[in-house]
Amino acid sequence: MIETCNSILKMGFQDGSRFFTFLFNDFLLFKERNGIYLYPEPITKLMDSYMKLPGIGAKTAARLAFFTINMKEDDVTDFAKALISAKRDLNYCSICGHITQDDPCSICQDKSRDRSIILVVEDPKDVISLEKMREYHGLYHILHGVLSPIEGTGPEDINIPSLIRRLQSEEVKEVIIATNATAEGEATAMYLSRLIRPAGIKVTRLAHGLSVGSDIEYADEITLLKAVEGRREIE
Amino acid sequence: MIETCNSILKMGFQDGSRFFTFLFNDFLLFKERNGIYLYPEPITKLMDSYMKLPGIGAKTAARLAFFTINMKEDDVTDFAKALISAKRDLNYCSICGHITQDDPCSICQDKSRDRSIILVVEDPKDVISLEKMREYHGLYHILHGVLSPIEGTGPEDINIPSLIRRLQSEEVKEVIIATNATAEGEATAMYLSRLIRPAGIKVTRLAHGLSVGSDIEYADEITLLKAVEGRREIE
Repeated sequence: MIETCNSILKMGFQDGSRFFTFLFNDFLLFKERNGIYLYPEPITKLMDSYMKLPGIGAKTAARLAFFTINMKEDDVTDFAKALISAKRDLNYCSICGHITQDDPCSICQDKSRDRSIILVVEDPKDVISLEKMREYHGLYHILHGVLSPIEGTGPEDINIPSLIRRLQSEEVKEVIIATNATAEGEATAMYLSRLIRPAGIKVTRLAHGLSVGSDIEYADEITLLKAVEGRREIE
Repeated sequence: MIETCNSILKMGFQDGSRFFTFLFNDFLLFKERNGIYLYPEPITKLMDSYMKLPGIGAKTAARLAFFTINMKEDDVTDFAKALISAKRDLNYCSICGHITQDDPCSICQDKSRDRSIILVVEDPKDVISLEKMREYHGLYHILHGVLSPIEGTGPEDINIPSLIRRLQSEEVKEVIIATNATAEGEATAMYLSRLIRPAGIKVTRLAHGLSVGSDIEYADEITLLKAVEGRREIE
């Protein structure tokens, strides 16, 4: 605990000049020390677990832990079971890399899907967003990341080799690249396009432009530029 | 799921005038429907559990669930065990109402504590804050709430009867009331003071004033008023 904590050591000058005190942050004070009574062990452990989640610090962890104690017993049991089950029963599809219970995943198994189009995304959550659209009936390929020279992520570190193998073995006519509109996402799209196009496969990229329902006034200049560049004739 | 969700029903006019669509929010779209593939069941269940926690909505629940899948197996197992243990092994102390593994709690059992002072707080988390101060060596009493006519919380609904029984049976000289400085906290302090003082027990309230290290410029006028009222002679 002491080693892992990124606490700031504060030196306080307390009570006249009686003594110096070193005040550690909340992290160190979870445990019972020097006759000071703090959280009982089960709650400390639960707080430690909550703090491992992203965006949850010591204060929120304490709030969630106390909330948990007051939850219905069945809800807590279900929560514990769901945690174990999510870790144990879920895996990545060996074909597309989507999160799934069965391998291959239900999308890859679906015979009614158009097997000539593959849509490439960064993250399994993107698949869910695209599925909600209800208009795309091709297959997916999930990269689980983007190329990033700064973070040292190369083509071998994300799901690109399996995409290439897929394109070699399956009859694919079009690859739609739907990486995010960030610098890394754009670079990944460029890289994939240069890799795939020579094989005679059509490579497309999702359109950039104004969000539906948005105000031109509030759009940033790059989005506006993309919207002007990608303008379409009114039929 | 459909019944419990507090979703906003949006009516969209899609694709020319081909059809009206009812777009429910993320809640309804967790499940697999009409050949659209969404989250696998283990992740749906985990998201449902995360969403029962305070301040966690559908988007955060999805993020936490995906994070959980990528966590180390041991960490997930520990998390599940911590949940069960916190619910099963923790209870409220039968004397003071503090959260504890053993009954009575370690503070009530500690013979070195000054048994003539009881500090009354709203919440077990307040005990932890006060213990960190390292200067208070009396006992505690946790109300688990405040009097609130609006929410229908009367003296019987919070831990007041057990406090009165304690004062009758133990030799207490002073009760320090440390409810929060809110309208309900102040009202509860007033109520307790009128109830306890006739028994010849000294009733005190924590001082209100400026926080240490704060700027007078940014202090609100009620805090300033309390600070002036509670001024002390410099020795």
